[in-house]
Amino acid sequence: MESVTAFLAQSATQYEFDSLPPHVIRVAQSCILDWLGVTIAAADESVVVAVRDTLSGGGDCTLVGSDRAATPLAAARINGTAGHVLDYDDVHAEFGGHPTVPILPAILALAESDGSSGRELITAFVAGLETESRINAIVAPSHYAMGFHTTASVGVFGAAAAAARLMSLDPDQTAHALGLASISASGLKSGFGTWGKSLQVGHAAHEGALAATLAGKGAVGPADGIECDQGFARTHSTEQDFAAAMQPVGKPWHTKDVLFKYHASCYGTHSSIESLLRLREHAGAAEVSGIDLAISPRHVGMCTQVDVSTPLQAKFSLAFTSALAWARGSAAREDFAPAVVSDGALQTLAGKVTTTAEDNRDFHLTDVRVHLADGTTLREEVDMSLAVPEGQLDAQWDKLAAKFHSLVDPICGIERAGQIVDTVAKLADLDNVAKLTALTRPNFGG
Amino acid sequence: MESVTAFLAQSATQYEFDSLPPHVIRVAQSCILDWLGVTIAAADESVVVAVRDTLSGGGDCTLVGSDRAATPLAAARINGTAGHVLDYDDVHAEFGGHPTVPILPAILALAESDGSSGRELITAFVAGLETESRINAIVAPSHYAMGFHTTASVGVFGAAAAAARLMSLDPDQTAHALGLASISASGLKSGFGTWGKSLQVGHAAHEGALAATLAGKGAVGPADGIECDQGFARTHSTEQDFAAAMQPVGKPWHTKDVLFKYHASCYGTHSSIESLLRLREHAGAAEVSGIDLAISPRHVGMCTQVDVSTPLQAKFSLAFTSALAWARGSAAREDFAPAVVSDGALQTLAGKVTTTAEDNRDFHLTDVRVHLADGTTLREEVDMSLAVPEGQLDAQWDKLAAKFHSLVDPICGIERAGQIVDTVAKLADLDNVAKLTALTRPNFGG
Repeated sequence: MESVTAFLAQSATQYEFDSLPPHVIRVAQSCILDWLGVTIAAADESVVVAVRDTLSGGGDCTLVGSDRAATPLAAARINGTAGHVLDYDDVHAEFGGHPTVPILPAILALAESDGSSGRELITAFVAGLETESRINAIVAPSHYAMGFHTTASVGVFGAAAAAARLMSLDPDQTAHALGLASISASGLKSGFGTWGKSLQVGHAAHEGALAATLAGKGAVGPADGIECDQGFARTHSTEQDFAAAMQPVGKPWHTKDVLFKYHASCYGTHSSIESLLRLREHAGAAEVSGIDLAISPRHVGMCTQVDVSTPLQAKFSLAFTSALAWARGSAAREDFAPAVVSDGALQTLAGKVTTTAEDNRDFHLTDVRVHLADGTTLREEVDMSLAVPEGQLDAQWDKLAAKFHSLVDPICGIERAGQIVDTVAKLADLDNVAKLTALTRPNFGG
Repeated sequence: MESVTAFLAQSATQYEFDSLPPHVIRVAQSCILDWLGVTIAAADESVVVAVRDTLSGGGDCTLVGSDRAATPLAAARINGTAGHVLDYDDVHAEFGGHPTVPILPAILALAESDGSSGRELITAFVAGLETESRINAIVAPSHYAMGFHTTASVGVFGAAAAAARLMSLDPDQTAHALGLASISASGLKSGFGTWGKSLQVGHAAHEGALAATLAGKGAVGPADGIECDQGFARTHSTEQDFAAAMQPVGKPWHTKDVLFKYHASCYGTHSSIESLLRLREHAGAAEVSGIDLAISPRHVGMCTQVDVSTPLQAKFSLAFTSALAWARGSAAREDFAPAVVSDGALQTLAGKVTTTAEDNRDFHLTDVRVHLADGTTLREEVDMSLAVPEGQLDAQWDKLAAKFHSLVDPICGIERAGQIVDTVAKLADLDNVAKLTALTRPNFGG
């Protein structure tokens, strides 16, 4: 067998801005805008404050949404944590996790530090997203089913590949970077509902950036670390499909399939939330006797929290988010405030929600039945697996820009938020990424 | 079941200097001295230079063997990497790895930064070593057999427990620290023979120190992260013995069982080296037609490298180290210089070494048969599993001090090396660990 690690390293060096389809570039910009918004909005979360207090200083690199600074590697870790703490960042069905957050903090910090261009940032980002998606294809679905948190445990390879591409490492150096990533890969679903979920994503961004940085200085890692006996794949999955990773560049473009979140909870809750929002339009204020959800086995242990007392738990509770969607018609960030989470009527309604896992049910498709007090049953099943087609990218951008403003205006003001949106919209023309990151410091130039 | 993580956290807070048996304190001092020696000696190794160049700056914390400095957390990572790169640091049969190197760099940096005393350092060190040994008892032997590098992947818990004890965290905070360690645990044997082996140990020291630091700031980790469904133990081993970890403090004292290395290669090669050194005393310069080793299955993939072209590979080659022992009567650091590794006569002799794994053979007991050209066969089997008894601790200290001087005199001079030995010998009386670490900066006060 040809070395999988070497193949992926070689591939990662082949992404060139001028060869990227416009659709892919547009999605990459959408990922960057969306991630900046959810990261700026998280700047005052306890976990972010603690990590920033612990790791900042000693460098000039931007901590998104803050006026503090750090070394590039520390910034990768702090921003990587911040970008996931709201659990509001993009997702990806094939990657099986959040594709942007392990990658972008790594290369944003390195790009700012090196004065890289917007085109270089986009190209590195795509290289990272494509590489992590391919590596997940090797270990999915058993990797996640075993207990690993793919966003972190596979995302570290995306960060390493993206950072390697940004630094123009050669294929051999990139293989060592992926090899070093393979031995620091970590992250477990057991961290869900705790600070651990976002911390381990920050860890992935940091370790990927460090692996590439060291590889650029001559580091020797296990250059067959992904596929070798007792290497990453065989220790972190029960079945491996190495051939799935060894496809030509752009066959397919995984970047096209990024999905964005418009509800502030676990993506596993989105199909049921969307279905309930549609059903409540018909039912008005009718009293509910029960809500039954037929869910995917992948939801179990991910978003089947029953006893909910904190915002973090609420975001991973199909019961609570169903109650929110029905009672408030919304599952936005403010709907997870502590006072809402402890609301008695909502908790009572959440207690009427049942979940039943069905063996072959898709992760993105929850069957929702609402039983009204008058005996009527309403039913809906919205599919959340489909990325928007090329013709709807403008509409998606507008929706993401609106989400961005709702998150960022309260912190940076509408004018600054608008500048960030415009800068990302014209990212391909930006000569220096530092001009973008500077805008994410609330008091910069103010 | 009582929470294992909570039990271990509670236990880790219970170590008090005044309750430690003198034997345990003496071994802890030996560990500290020995680790300082192998770390100072590694200061110019490529991996150490690269990590130091990448992560130093921004703080005042000592980088052992260097005049550069770093933040405490970066120092933990840099010193943790440096302390393992020569693969000359202590080992432990029950822990199944190198017990000191994931722990000491974490607490040495924090102790220097906080002005902790020698007694506090020793107490925290013992808390870490006892905790990591208990956690390894849960997942051994399948954890290592699966491909994980215990020193890193379990060592991270030792670092977290030690750092938590040094910072006087309470049991609840310590449980969160162990929980955060549980989701960043990583390190694979596939990194052996590359920079990865030492880098992942530095990673463990860093992640443990960070977990405790964040727990001290209120971090919430998975407080049942070791034992929960799909937590660390169940994702990183095929069989778990949770009861093995839940013993009263000091029942037994795992610290008593630390073993020290007097050969600069993988500990799996030491039994055969010691046997060959004894046999060559009888055989003189007799010509060898073959050397047959009956080895433990645990050696396979650990020190069964056959084609050896670099010093790192040579240290993990039973064939090469056997050739060294027989031909040069020594396997010290200088015997792994590139010119020695590429020596034709040694390579020829290494080619005459066979290894056969025997199912039930102990890791510390290799059966060595040397076939001489005259038809004679010599046989020896030295047991390397036994820590020295209490009555021989003085002799062991003298042997370790001699090893220390051989490593450190060329870098710091004999006088400075002697000061370090004396300071560690009187560590229980040291009011501030910063006085010890300052001595490990070669040009300090010079």
